[in-house]
Amino acid sequence: MTATLIDGKAISDTIKQEVKSALETLVPQAGRPPGLAVVLVGDDPASASYVRGKRKTCAALGITSIAHDLDASTDRDTVLGLVRSLNDDDAVDAILVQSPLPPHLDEHEVVNLISPDKDVDGFHPVNVGKLLIGEPTFVSCTPAGVQELLARSGVETRGAHVVIVGRSTIVGKPLAALLMQKADGADATVTVCHSRTRHLAEIARTADILVAAIGRARFVTADMVRPGAVVIDVGVNRVEDASAKRGYRLVGDVDFDAVVEVASKITPVPGGVGPMTIAMLMRNTLTAYRRRCGL
Amino acid sequence: MTATLIDGKAISDTIKQEVKSALETLVPQAGRPPGLAVVLVGDDPASASYVRGKRKTCAALGITSIAHDLDASTDRDTVLGLVRSLNDDDAVDAILVQSPLPPHLDEHEVVNLISPDKDVDGFHPVNVGKLLIGEPTFVSCTPAGVQELLARSGVETRGAHVVIVGRSTIVGKPLAALLMQKADGADATVTVCHSRTRHLAEIARTADILVAAIGRARFVTADMVRPGAVVIDVGVNRVEDASAKRGYRLVGDVDFDAVVEVASKITPVPGGVGPMTIAMLMRNTLTAYRRRCGL
Repeated sequence: MTATLIDGKAISDTIKQEVKSALETLVPQAGRPPGLAVVLVGDDPASASYVRGKRKTCAALGITSIAHDLDASTDRDTVLGLVRSLNDDDAVDAILVQSPLPPHLDEHEVVNLISPDKDVDGFHPVNVGKLLIGEPTFVSCTPAGVQELLARSGVETRGAHVVIVGRSTIVGKPLAALLMQKADGADATVTVCHSRTRHLAEIARTADILVAAIGRARFVTADMVRPGAVVIDVGVNRVEDASAKRGYRLVGDVDFDAVVEVASKITPVPGGVGPMTIAMLMRNTLTAYRRRCGL
Repeated sequence: MTATLIDGKAISDTIKQEVKSALETLVPQAGRPPGLAVVLVGDDPASASYVRGKRKTCAALGITSIAHDLDASTDRDTVLGLVRSLNDDDAVDAILVQSPLPPHLDEHEVVNLISPDKDVDGFHPVNVGKLLIGEPTFVSCTPAGVQELLARSGVETRGAHVVIVGRSTIVGKPLAALLMQKADGADATVTVCHSRTRHLAEIARTADILVAAIGRARFVTADMVRPGAVVIDVGVNRVEDASAKRGYRLVGDVDFDAVVEVASKITPVPGGVGPMTIAMLMRNTLTAYRRRCGL
Protein backbone atom coordinates (compact mmCIF):
# COMPACT_ATOMS: atom_id res chain seq x y z
CA MET A 1 0.00 0.00 0.00
CA THR A 2 1.10 3.56 -0.59
CA ALA A 3 -0.93 6.09 1.33
CA THR A 4 -2.82 8.97 -0.24
CA LEU A 5 -1.34 12.31 0.77
CA ILE A 6 -3.59 14.69 2.67
CA ASP A 7 -2.77 18.02 1.08
CA GLY A 8 -2.86 20.53 3.91
CA LYS A 9 -1.67 23.29 1.65
CA ALA A 10 -4.59 22.88 -0.76
CA ILE A 11 -7.15 22.50 2.04
CA SER A 12 -5.81 25.54 3.87
CA ASP A 13 -5.97 27.54 0.62
CA THR A 14 -9.62 26.58 0.26
CA ILE A 15 -10.39 27.69 3.82
CA LYS A 16 -8.55 30.97 3.34
CA GLN A 17 -10.52 31.55 0.15
CA GLU A 18 -13.74 30.88 2.07
CA VAL A 19 -12.73 33.45 4.69
CA LYS A 20 -11.87 35.97 1.98
CA SER A 21 -15.19 35.46 0.21
CA ALA A 22 -17.12 35.80 3.46
CA LEU A 23 -15.33 39.06 4.21
CA GLU A 24 -16.11 40.45 0.78
CA THR A 25 -19.76 40.26 1.79
CA LEU A 26 -19.41 41.19 5.45
CA VAL A 27 -16.99 44.11 5.42
CA PRO A 28 -19.30 46.44 3.46
CA GLN A 29 -22.09 45.58 5.92
CA ALA A 30 -19.94 46.16 8.98
CA GLY A 31 -18.31 49.25 7.55
CA ARG A 32 -14.87 48.16 8.72
CA PRO A 33 -12.50 45.22 8.20
CA PRO A 34 -11.69 42.72 10.95
CA GLY A 35 -8.65 43.55 13.07
CA LEU A 36 -6.21 40.95 14.36
CA ALA A 37 -3.64 42.27 16.83
CA VAL A 38 -0.46 40.20 16.85
CA VAL A 39 1.88 40.80 19.76
CA LEU A 40 5.46 39.66 19.36
CA VAL A 41 7.87 40.08 22.27
CA GLY A 42 11.55 39.59 21.52
CA ASP A 43 13.35 38.45 18.42
CA ASP A 44 13.12 34.65 18.36
CA PRO A 45 13.64 33.94 14.64
CA ALA A 46 11.03 31.14 14.47
CA SER A 47 8.43 33.32 16.20
CA ALA A 48 9.23 36.24 13.91
CA SER A 49 8.78 33.97 10.92
CA TYR A 50 5.40 32.66 12.15
CA VAL A 51 4.23 36.19 12.83
CA ARG A 52 5.28 37.33 9.35
CA GLY A 53 3.26 34.47 7.88
CA LYS A 54 0.20 35.42 9.87
CA ARG A 55 0.44 39.08 8.93
CA LYS A 56 0.93 38.27 5.26
CA THR A 57 -2.12 35.99 5.26
CA CYS A 58 -4.19 38.68 6.96
CA ALA A 59 -3.26 41.12 4.22
CA ALA A 60 -4.21 38.63 1.51
CA LEU A 61 -7.65 38.00 3.00
CA GLY A 62 -8.68 41.54 3.88
CA ILE A 63 -7.99 41.35 7.61
CA THR A 64 -6.21 44.30 9.18
CA SER A 65 -3.17 43.06 11.01
CA ILE A 66 -2.19 45.28 13.91
CA ALA A 67 1.48 44.71 14.70
CA HIS A 68 2.88 45.14 18.20
CA ASP A 69 6.53 44.17 18.14
CA LEU A 70 8.04 44.66 21.56
CA ASP A 71 11.61 44.49 22.69
CA ALA A 72 12.65 41.27 24.47
CA SER A 73 13.23 43.24 27.67
CA THR A 74 9.72 44.74 27.77
CA ASP A 75 8.47 44.57 31.35
CA ARG A 76 5.41 42.77 32.65
CA ASP A 77 3.32 45.88 33.25
CA THR A 78 3.85 47.12 29.71
CA VAL A 79 2.79 43.79 28.20
CA LEU A 80 -0.24 43.48 30.47
CA GLY A 81 -1.15 47.09 29.77
CA LEU A 82 -0.98 46.46 26.04
CA VAL A 83 -3.28 43.42 26.32
CA ARG A 84 -5.76 45.49 28.34
CA SER A 85 -5.76 48.25 25.76
CA LEU A 86 -6.29 45.73 22.95
CA ASN A 87 -9.17 44.19 24.91
CA ASP A 88 -10.77 47.64 25.05
CA ASP A 89 -10.02 48.61 21.45
CA ASP A 90 -13.15 48.35 19.30
CA ALA A 91 -11.14 48.01 16.10
CA VAL A 92 -9.49 44.88 17.48
CA ASP A 93 -11.61 41.75 17.06
CA ALA A 94 -8.91 39.24 17.78
CA ILE A 95 -5.71 39.15 19.83
CA LEU A 96 -2.80 36.79 19.51
CA VAL A 97 0.28 36.83 21.70
CA GLN A 98 3.00 34.87 19.97
CA SER A 99 4.46 32.08 22.10
CA PRO A 100 7.02 31.63 23.60
CA LEU A 101 7.38 34.80 25.66
CA PRO A 102 10.75 35.73 27.15
CA PRO A 103 11.34 33.93 30.46
CA HIS A 104 10.68 36.99 32.67
CA LEU A 105 7.07 37.06 31.49
CA ASP A 106 4.44 34.61 32.77
CA GLU A 107 2.68 33.21 29.73
CA HIS A 108 -0.36 32.03 31.72
CA GLU A 109 -0.80 35.49 33.20
CA VAL A 110 -0.68 37.19 29.82
CA VAL A 111 -3.00 34.73 28.08
CA ASN A 112 -5.46 34.73 30.99
CA LEU A 113 -5.78 38.50 30.61
CA ILE A 114 -6.87 38.36 26.95
CA SER A 115 -10.60 38.85 26.61
CA PRO A 116 -12.01 35.36 25.89
CA ASP A 117 -14.13 36.91 23.12
CA LYS A 118 -10.96 38.00 21.31
CA ASP A 119 -8.87 34.92 22.15
CA VAL A 120 -8.61 33.46 18.63
CA ASP A 121 -5.77 31.19 19.71
CA GLY A 122 -8.23 29.44 22.05
CA PHE A 123 -5.68 29.35 24.86
CA HIS A 124 -7.66 31.21 27.54
CA PRO A 125 -8.88 28.81 30.26
CA VAL A 126 -12.49 29.86 29.64
CA ASN A 127 -12.19 28.76 26.03
CA VAL A 128 -10.31 25.58 26.88
CA GLY A 129 -12.97 24.79 29.48
CA LYS A 130 -15.80 25.37 27.02
CA LEU A 131 -14.04 23.08 24.58
CA LEU A 132 -13.96 20.23 27.11
CA ILE A 133 -17.52 20.93 28.26
CA GLY A 134 -18.73 21.07 24.66
CA GLU A 135 -19.92 24.68 24.54
CA PRO A 136 -19.23 26.78 21.42
CA THR A 137 -15.81 28.40 21.72
CA PHE A 138 -12.63 29.31 19.89
CA VAL A 139 -10.87 26.01 19.34
CA SER A 140 -7.12 26.46 19.26
CA CYS A 141 -5.79 26.52 15.74
CA THR A 142 -3.76 23.34 15.43
CA PRO A 143 -6.39 20.98 16.91
CA ALA A 144 -9.06 22.74 14.85
CA GLY A 145 -6.84 22.32 11.80
CA VAL A 146 -6.43 18.59 12.41
CA GLN A 147 -10.19 18.18 12.73
CA GLU A 148 -10.77 20.13 9.53
CA LEU A 149 -8.13 18.15 7.62
CA LEU A 150 -9.86 14.91 8.60
CA ALA A 151 -13.31 16.20 7.69
CA ARG A 152 -12.23 17.59 4.31
CA SER A 153 -10.34 14.42 3.45
CA GLY A 154 -13.43 12.30 4.01
CA VAL A 155 -12.07 10.60 7.12
CA GLU A 156 -14.92 9.59 9.42
CA THR A 157 -14.12 10.27 13.06
CA ARG A 158 -17.44 9.04 14.45
CA GLY A 159 -16.80 5.76 16.24
CA ALA A 160 -13.19 5.72 15.09
CA HIS A 161 -10.39 5.08 17.56
CA VAL A 162 -8.10 8.11 17.58
CA VAL A 163 -4.78 7.62 19.33
CA ILE A 164 -2.96 10.88 20.05
CA VAL A 165 0.72 10.58 20.89
CA GLY A 166 1.63 13.66 22.92
CA ARG A 167 -0.23 15.59 25.60
CA SER A 168 0.84 19.18 25.05
CA THR A 169 -1.46 22.00 26.06
CA ILE A 170 -1.36 23.33 22.51
CA VAL A 171 -2.13 20.13 20.62
CA GLY A 172 -2.59 16.79 22.37
CA LYS A 173 -4.91 17.72 25.21
CA PRO A 174 -7.23 20.11 23.33
CA LEU A 175 -7.37 17.76 20.33
CA ALA A 176 -8.45 14.94 22.64
CA ALA A 177 -11.11 17.20 24.16
CA LEU A 178 -12.31 18.20 20.68
CA LEU A 179 -12.54 14.74 19.17
CA MET A 180 -14.25 13.03 22.13
CA GLN A 181 -17.26 15.38 22.00
CA LYS A 182 -20.64 14.12 20.88
CA ALA A 183 -20.59 16.28 17.75
CA ASP A 184 -20.10 16.18 14.00
CA GLY A 185 -16.45 15.86 13.06
CA ALA A 186 -15.81 14.30 16.45
CA ASP A 187 -17.52 11.48 18.38
CA ALA A 188 -14.36 9.40 18.37
CA THR A 189 -13.00 7.02 20.97
CA VAL A 190 -9.89 8.90 22.07
CA THR A 191 -6.68 7.66 23.66
CA VAL A 192 -3.91 10.01 24.78
CA CYS A 193 -0.41 8.52 25.03
CA HIS A 194 2.78 10.20 26.21
CA SER A 195 6.25 9.66 27.61
CA ARG A 196 4.91 7.53 30.47
CA THR A 197 2.81 5.25 28.28
CA ARG A 198 3.66 1.58 28.42
CA HIS A 199 3.17 -0.57 25.31
CA LEU A 200 2.98 2.55 23.14
CA ALA A 201 3.46 0.69 19.85
CA GLU A 202 0.74 -1.78 20.74
CA ILE A 203 -1.72 0.98 21.62
CA ALA A 204 -0.80 3.01 18.55
CA ARG A 205 -1.53 -0.03 16.39
CA THR A 206 -5.14 -0.06 17.62
CA ALA A 207 -5.70 3.38 16.09
CA ASP A 208 -7.92 4.00 13.12
CA ILE A 209 -6.51 7.53 13.18
CA LEU A 210 -3.06 8.08 14.64
CA VAL A 211 -1.97 11.61 15.53
CA ALA A 212 1.70 12.26 16.24
CA ALA A 213 2.33 15.39 18.30
CA ILE A 214 5.34 14.75 20.49
CA GLY A 215 8.01 16.86 18.86
CA ARG A 216 10.48 14.06 18.22
CA ALA A 217 11.75 13.51 14.70
CA ARG A 218 10.48 10.29 13.07
CA PHE A 219 9.29 8.91 16.42
CA VAL A 220 6.32 7.04 14.91
CA THR A 221 7.68 4.10 12.97
CA ALA A 222 5.88 1.75 10.59
CA ASP A 223 5.49 -0.97 13.23
CA MET A 224 3.34 1.44 15.28
CA VAL A 225 0.80 1.87 12.49
CA ARG A 226 -2.03 -0.51 11.66
CA PRO A 227 -2.21 -1.15 7.90
CA GLY A 228 -4.84 1.19 6.52
CA ALA A 229 -4.77 3.66 9.39
CA VAL A 230 -4.91 7.41 8.79
CA VAL A 231 -1.78 9.17 10.07
CA ILE A 232 -1.71 12.86 10.99
CA ASP A 233 1.73 14.29 11.66
CA VAL A 234 1.72 17.46 13.74
CA GLY A 235 5.47 17.51 14.37
CA VAL A 236 7.93 19.95 12.88
CA ASN A 237 11.52 19.04 13.73
CA ARG A 238 14.81 20.23 12.36
CA VAL A 239 17.25 17.54 11.39
CA GLU A 240 20.74 18.21 10.13
CA ASP A 241 21.11 17.87 6.39
CA ALA A 242 24.40 18.93 4.87
CA SER A 243 22.87 18.88 1.40
CA ALA A 244 20.23 21.46 2.35
CA LYS A 245 20.91 25.15 1.84
CA ARG A 246 20.39 26.02 5.53
CA GLY A 247 22.13 22.89 6.78
CA TYR A 248 18.91 21.35 8.07
CA ARG A 249 15.55 20.28 6.86
CA LEU A 250 12.16 19.89 8.48
CA VAL A 251 10.73 16.47 9.26
CA GLY A 252 7.67 15.40 11.18
CA ASP A 253 7.16 13.11 14.16
CA VAL A 254 6.42 10.29 11.72
CA ASP A 255 8.96 8.21 9.85
CA PHE A 256 7.24 9.23 6.63
CA ASP A 257 9.10 7.09 4.10
CA ALA A 258 8.21 3.88 5.93
CA VAL A 259 4.78 4.81 7.26
CA VAL A 260 3.54 5.97 3.85
CA GLU A 261 3.71 2.31 2.81
CA VAL A 262 1.43 1.21 5.66
CA ALA A 263 -1.12 3.99 6.15
CA SER A 264 -4.12 4.66 3.93
CA LYS A 265 -3.83 8.45 4.24
CA ILE A 266 -1.06 10.57 5.65
CA THR A 267 -0.12 14.22 6.01
CA PRO A 268 3.30 15.27 4.74
CA VAL A 269 5.69 17.59 6.62
CA PRO A 270 5.84 20.30 5.49
CA GLY A 271 2.52 20.85 3.72
CA GLY A 272 0.22 18.91 6.04
CA VAL A 273 -0.97 20.25 9.39
CA GLY A 274 1.34 23.30 9.33
CA PRO A 275 -0.56 25.42 6.79
CA MET A 276 -3.85 24.59 8.53
CA THR A 277 -2.88 26.44 11.68
CA ILE A 278 -2.84 29.85 9.99
CA ALA A 279 -6.01 29.06 8.06
CA MET A 280 -7.85 28.24 11.29
CA LEU A 281 -6.51 31.41 12.88
CA MET A 282 -8.05 33.34 10.02
CA ARG A 283 -11.33 31.50 10.45
CA ASN A 284 -11.36 32.15 14.19
CA THR A 285 -10.70 35.82 13.46
CA LEU A 286 -13.65 35.82 11.07
CA THR A 287 -15.80 34.25 13.79
CA ALA A 288 -14.71 36.84 16.37
CA TYR A 289 -15.46 39.61 13.88
CA ARG A 290 -18.91 38.25 13.02
CA ARG A 291 -19.84 37.93 16.68
CA ARG A 292 -18.62 41.40 17.54
CA CYS A 293 -20.43 42.93 14.55
CA GLY A 294 -23.53 40.79 15.09
CA LEU A 295 -23.29 39.49 11.50
CA MET B 1 -9.71 -14.30 42.27
CA THR B 2 -11.94 -12.24 44.47
CA ALA B 3 -11.22 -8.53 44.37
CA THR B 4 -10.37 -6.43 47.39
CA LEU B 5 -13.07 -3.86 48.09
CA ILE B 6 -12.06 -0.21 47.93
CA ASP B 7 -13.87 1.25 50.91
CA GLY B 8 -15.01 4.69 49.80
CA LYS B 9 -16.90 5.22 53.03
CA ALA B 10 -13.79 4.73 55.17
CA ILE B 11 -11.58 6.82 52.86
CA SER B 12 -14.13 9.62 52.73
CA ASP B 13 -14.38 9.56 56.54
CA THR B 14 -10.61 9.98 56.73
CA ILE B 15 -10.69 12.95 54.37
CA LYS B 16 -13.53 14.58 56.26
CA GLN B 17 -11.59 14.10 59.48
CA GLU B 18 -8.58 15.76 57.86
CA VAL B 19 -10.72 18.73 56.84
CA LYS B 20 -12.17 18.96 60.35
CA SER B 21 -8.72 18.89 61.96
CA ALA B 22 -7.40 21.54 59.58
CA LEU B 23 -10.34 23.79 60.42
CA GLU B 24 -9.77 23.40 64.16
CA THR B 25 -6.42 25.11 63.58
CA LEU B 26 -7.48 27.57 60.89
CA VAL B 27 -10.78 28.94 62.18
CA PRO B 28 -9.28 30.58 65.28
CA GLN B 29 -6.67 32.21 63.06
CA ALA B 30 -9.19 33.43 60.50
CA GLY B 31 -11.69 34.49 63.14
CA ARG B 32 -14.59 32.99 61.20
CA PRO B 33 -15.65 29.58 59.89
CA PRO B 34 -15.77 28.76 56.19
CA GLY B 35 -19.11 29.38 54.49
CA LEU B 36 -20.55 27.13 51.79
CA ALA B 37 -23.65 28.48 50.08
CA VAL B 38 -25.84 25.72 48.67
CA VAL B 39 -28.52 26.83 46.23
CA LEU B 40 -31.38 24.42 45.62
CA VAL B 41 -34.07 25.36 43.10
CA GLY B 42 -37.22 23.24 43.10
CA ASP B 43 -38.13 20.09 44.94
CA ASP B 44 -36.53 17.21 43.09
CA PRO B 45 -36.34 14.54 45.82
CA ALA B 46 -32.90 13.23 44.82
CA SER B 47 -31.46 16.77 44.73
CA ALA B 48 -33.03 17.57 48.10
CA SER B 49 -31.46 14.44 49.53
CA TYR B 50 -27.99 15.29 48.16
CA VAL B 51 -28.27 18.80 49.52
CA ARG B 52 -29.29 17.52 52.96
CA GLY B 53 -26.23 15.28 52.96
CA LYS B 54 -23.95 18.18 52.07
CA ARG B 55 -25.41 20.45 54.73
CA LYS B 56 -25.18 17.73 57.36
CA THR B 57 -21.53 17.08 56.54
CA CYS B 58 -20.78 20.81 56.69
CA ALA B 59 -22.26 20.95 60.18
CA ALA B 60 -20.18 17.98 61.31
CA LEU B 61 -16.92 19.53 60.07
CA GLY B 62 -17.37 23.09 61.26
CA ILE B 63 -18.33 24.61 57.92
CA THR B 64 -21.21 27.06 57.92
CA SER B 65 -23.76 25.92 55.39
CA ILE B 66 -25.79 28.76 53.96
CA ALA B 67 -29.06 27.40 52.60
CA HIS B 68 -30.88 29.01 49.69
CA ASP B 69 -33.90 26.90 48.87
CA LEU B 70 -35.84 28.48 46.05
CA ASP B 71 -39.19 27.61 44.61
CA ALA B 72 -39.15 25.64 41.33
CA SER B 73 -40.77 28.61 39.57
CA THR B 74 -38.08 31.11 40.61
CA ASP B 75 -37.25 33.27 37.61
CA ARG B 76 -33.91 33.68 35.92
CA ASP B 77 -33.18 37.16 37.22
CA THR B 78 -33.74 36.11 40.82
CA VAL B 79 -31.38 33.14 40.52
CA LEU B 80 -28.70 35.18 38.74
CA GLY B 81 -29.11 37.96 41.29
CA LEU B 82 -28.65 35.49 44.12
CA VAL B 83 -25.45 34.13 42.56
CA ARG B 84 -24.13 37.67 42.17
CA SER B 85 -24.84 38.49 45.79
CA LEU B 86 -23.13 35.28 46.94
CA ASN B 87 -20.11 36.16 44.79
CA ASP B 88 -19.94 39.50 46.62
CA ASP B 89 -20.59 38.11 50.11
CA ASP B 90 -17.38 37.96 52.13
CA ALA B 91 -18.76 35.30 54.47
CA VAL B 92 -19.28 32.97 51.50
CA ASP B 93 -16.12 31.10 50.48
CA ALA B 94 -17.80 28.56 48.30
CA ILE B 95 -20.91 28.37 46.15
CA LEU B 96 -22.70 25.31 44.90
CA VAL B 97 -25.81 25.34 42.72
CA GLN B 98 -27.41 21.94 42.89
CA SER B 99 -27.98 20.33 39.50
CA PRO B 100 -30.34 19.79 37.71
CA LEU B 101 -32.04 23.17 37.55
CA PRO B 102 -35.66 23.43 36.41
CA PRO B 103 -35.89 23.53 32.60
CA HIS B 104 -36.66 27.27 32.36
CA LEU B 105 -33.20 28.04 33.79
CA ASP B 106 -30.01 27.79 31.73
CA GLU B 107 -27.55 25.78 33.78
CA HIS B 108 -24.52 27.00 31.80
CA GLU B 109 -25.55 30.61 32.36
CA VAL B 110 -25.92 30.14 36.11
CA VAL B 111 -22.69 28.18 36.56
CA ASN B 112 -20.73 30.59 34.36
CA LEU B 113 -21.78 33.44 36.64
CA ILE B 114 -20.32 31.85 39.81
CA SER B 115 -17.01 33.42 40.74
CA PRO B 116 -14.35 30.87 39.70
CA ASP B 117 -12.68 31.42 43.10
CA LYS B 118 -15.81 30.17 44.85
CA ASP B 119 -16.71 27.44 42.33
CA VAL B 120 -16.03 24.41 44.56
CA ASP B 121 -17.93 22.16 42.16
CA GLY B 122 -15.28 22.91 39.55
CA PHE B 123 -17.89 23.34 36.83
CA HIS B 124 -17.03 26.90 35.72
CA PRO B 125 -15.32 26.89 32.29
CA VAL B 126 -12.30 28.71 33.74
CA ASN B 127 -11.79 25.89 36.22
CA VAL B 128 -12.45 23.17 33.66
CA GLY B 129 -9.98 24.86 31.34
CA LYS B 130 -7.31 25.09 34.02
CA LEU B 131 -7.84 21.40 34.73
CA LEU B 132 -7.13 20.49 31.11
CA ILE B 133 -4.22 22.92 30.87
CA GLY B 134 -2.79 21.60 34.14
CA GLU B 135 -3.00 24.79 36.22
CA PRO B 136 -4.07 24.57 39.88
CA THR B 137 -7.85 24.72 40.09
CA PHE B 138 -10.92 23.30 41.78
CA VAL B 139 -11.28 19.83 40.35
CA SER B 140 -14.90 18.75 40.25
CA CYS B 141 -15.76 16.50 43.13
CA THR B 142 -16.44 13.13 41.54
CA PRO B 143 -13.30 13.03 39.36
CA ALA B 144 -11.26 14.31 42.30
CA GLY B 145 -12.83 11.59 44.44
CA VAL B 146 -11.91 8.88 41.96
CA GLN B 147 -8.31 10.10 41.87
CA GLU B 148 -8.16 10.18 45.66
CA LEU B 149 -9.67 6.69 45.99
CA LEU B 150 -6.98 5.32 43.69
CA ALA B 151 -4.16 7.13 45.49
CA ARG B 152 -5.32 6.06 48.95
CA SER B 153 -5.80 2.46 47.84
CA GLY B 154 -2.23 2.25 46.63
CA VAL B 155 -3.21 2.03 42.96
CA GLU B 156 -0.45 3.48 40.78
CA THR B 157 -1.82 5.59 37.95
CA ARG B 158 1.56 6.60 36.49
CA GLY B 159 1.97 4.73 33.22
CA ALA B 160 -1.23 2.78 33.78
CA HIS B 161 -3.84 2.53 31.04
CA VAL B 162 -7.07 4.03 32.34
CA VAL B 163 -10.15 3.34 30.26
CA ILE B 164 -13.10 5.56 31.13
CA VAL B 165 -16.48 4.42 29.86
CA GLY B 166 -18.68 7.49 29.64
CA ARG B 167 -17.95 11.07 28.54
CA SER B 168 -20.20 13.16 30.74
CA THR B 169 -19.21 16.71 31.57
CA ILE B 170 -19.43 15.89 35.28
CA VAL B 171 -17.33 12.71 35.32
CA GLY B 172 -15.87 11.19 32.17
CA LYS B 173 -14.37 14.22 30.46
CA PRO B 174 -12.89 15.97 33.53
CA LEU B 175 -11.59 12.66 34.89
CA ALA B 176 -9.80 12.05 31.60
CA ALA B 177 -8.34 15.57 31.76
CA LEU B 178 -7.22 14.98 35.35
CA LEU B 179 -5.57 11.61 34.88
CA MET B 180 -3.68 12.45 31.66
CA GLN B 181 -1.75 15.32 33.31
CA LYS B 182 1.95 15.01 33.98
CA ALA B 183 1.45 15.05 37.76
CA ASP B 184 1.42 12.86 40.84
CA GLY B 185 -1.73 10.78 41.09
CA ALA B 186 -2.09 11.09 37.32
CA ASP B 187 0.32 10.52 34.40
CA ALA B 188 -1.86 7.74 33.01
CA THR B 189 -2.51 6.73 29.43
CA VAL B 190 -6.18 7.61 29.13
CA THR B 191 -8.87 6.30 26.79
CA VAL B 192 -12.41 7.68 26.76
CA CYS B 193 -15.12 5.36 25.42
CA HIS B 194 -18.80 6.09 24.93
CA SER B 195 -21.97 5.11 23.10
CA ARG B 196 -20.26 5.42 19.69
CA THR B 197 -17.25 3.31 20.61
CA ARG B 198 -16.69 0.22 18.51
CA HIS B 199 -15.12 -2.87 20.11
CA LEU B 200 -15.86 -1.50 23.57
CA ALA B 201 -15.28 -4.80 25.37
CA GLU B 202 -11.96 -5.25 23.63
CA ILE B 203 -10.78 -1.75 24.55
CA ALA B 204 -12.04 -2.10 28.13
CA ARG B 205 -10.03 -5.31 28.47
CA THR B 206 -6.82 -3.37 27.78
CA ALA B 207 -7.39 -1.28 30.93
CA ASP B 208 -5.25 -1.50 34.02
CA ILE B 209 -7.85 0.73 35.62
CA LEU B 210 -11.41 0.65 34.29
CA VAL B 211 -13.80 3.44 35.24
CA ALA B 212 -17.51 2.96 34.57
CA ALA B 213 -19.46 6.21 34.36
CA ILE B 214 -22.25 5.73 31.86
CA GLY B 215 -25.30 5.56 34.05
CA ARG B 216 -26.49 2.13 32.88
CA ALA B 217 -27.08 -0.57 35.45
CA ARG B 218 -24.56 -3.41 35.33
CA PHE B 219 -23.31 -2.35 31.89
CA VAL B 220 -19.73 -3.47 32.53
CA THR B 221 -19.69 -7.23 32.52
CA ALA B 222 -16.91 -9.64 33.53
CA ASP B 223 -15.82 -10.25 29.94
CA MET B 224 -14.95 -6.54 29.65
CA VAL B 225 -12.45 -6.71 32.52
CA ARG B 226 -8.88 -7.93 32.31
CA PRO B 227 -8.08 -10.29 35.19
CA GLY B 228 -6.36 -8.22 37.86
CA ALA B 229 -7.63 -4.85 36.68
CA VAL B 230 -8.83 -2.21 39.14
CA VAL B 231 -12.49 -1.33 38.61
CA ILE B 232 -14.02 1.97 39.71
CA ASP B 233 -17.79 2.16 39.51
CA VAL B 234 -19.17 5.70 39.38
CA GLY B 235 -22.71 4.65 38.47
CA VAL B 236 -25.73 4.88 40.73
CA ASN B 237 -28.80 3.31 39.16
CA ARG B 238 -32.15 2.31 40.61
CA VAL B 239 -33.30 -1.19 39.78
CA GLU B 240 -36.64 -2.61 40.82
CA ASP B 241 -36.45 -4.92 43.79
CA ALA B 242 -39.71 -6.11 45.26
CA SER B 243 -37.90 -7.36 48.35
CA ALA B 244 -36.52 -3.89 49.15
CA LYS B 245 -38.45 -1.54 51.41
CA ARG B 246 -38.69 1.22 48.79
CA GLY B 247 -39.30 -1.21 45.93
CA TYR B 248 -35.88 -0.56 44.39
CA ARG B 249 -32.24 -0.77 45.22
CA LEU B 250 -29.14 1.02 44.00
CA VAL B 251 -26.66 -0.71 41.72
CA GLY B 252 -23.64 0.59 39.86
CA ASP B 253 -22.64 0.53 36.20
CA VAL B 254 -20.66 -2.63 36.90
CA ASP B 255 -22.03 -6.14 37.17
CA PHE B 256 -20.48 -6.37 40.59
CA ASP B 257 -21.13 -10.03 41.46
CA ALA B 258 -19.34 -11.25 38.35
CA VAL B 259 -16.64 -8.58 38.05
CA VAL B 260 -15.57 -8.98 41.69
CA GLU B 261 -14.28 -12.41 40.68
CA VAL B 262 -12.07 -10.96 37.92
CA ALA B 263 -10.78 -7.61 39.20
CA SER B 264 -8.01 -7.12 41.75
CA LYS B 265 -9.71 -4.14 43.41
CA ILE B 266 -13.21 -2.80 43.00
CA THR B 267 -15.46 -0.12 44.46
CA PRO B 268 -18.86 -1.23 45.71
CA VAL B 269 -22.11 0.67 45.07
CA PRO B 270 -23.14 2.12 47.42
CA GLY B 271 -20.08 2.85 49.55
CA GLY B 272 -17.51 3.41 46.83
CA VAL B 273 -17.24 6.60 44.79
CA GLY B 274 -20.48 8.06 46.18
CA PRO B 275 -19.23 9.11 49.62
CA MET B 276 -16.07 10.58 48.07
CA THR B 277 -18.01 13.28 46.24
CA ILE B 278 -19.11 15.03 49.43
CA ALA B 279 -15.69 14.59 51.01
CA MET B 280 -14.03 16.29 48.03
CA LEU B 281 -16.60 19.07 48.16
CA MET B 282 -15.58 19.68 51.76
CA ARG B 283 -11.93 19.67 50.80
CA ASN B 284 -12.53 22.10 47.94
CA THR B 285 -14.41 24.33 50.39
CA LEU B 286 -11.43 24.19 52.75
CA THR B 287 -9.15 25.16 49.85
CA ALA B 288 -11.38 28.10 48.87
CA TYR B 289 -11.45 29.24 52.50
CA ARG B 290 -7.67 29.02 52.88
CA ARG B 291 -7.10 30.99 49.71
CA ARG B 292 -9.58 33.67 50.63
CA CYS B 293 -8.16 34.00 54.17
CA GLY B 294 -4.57 33.74 52.93
CA LEU B 295 -3.92 30.81 55.29
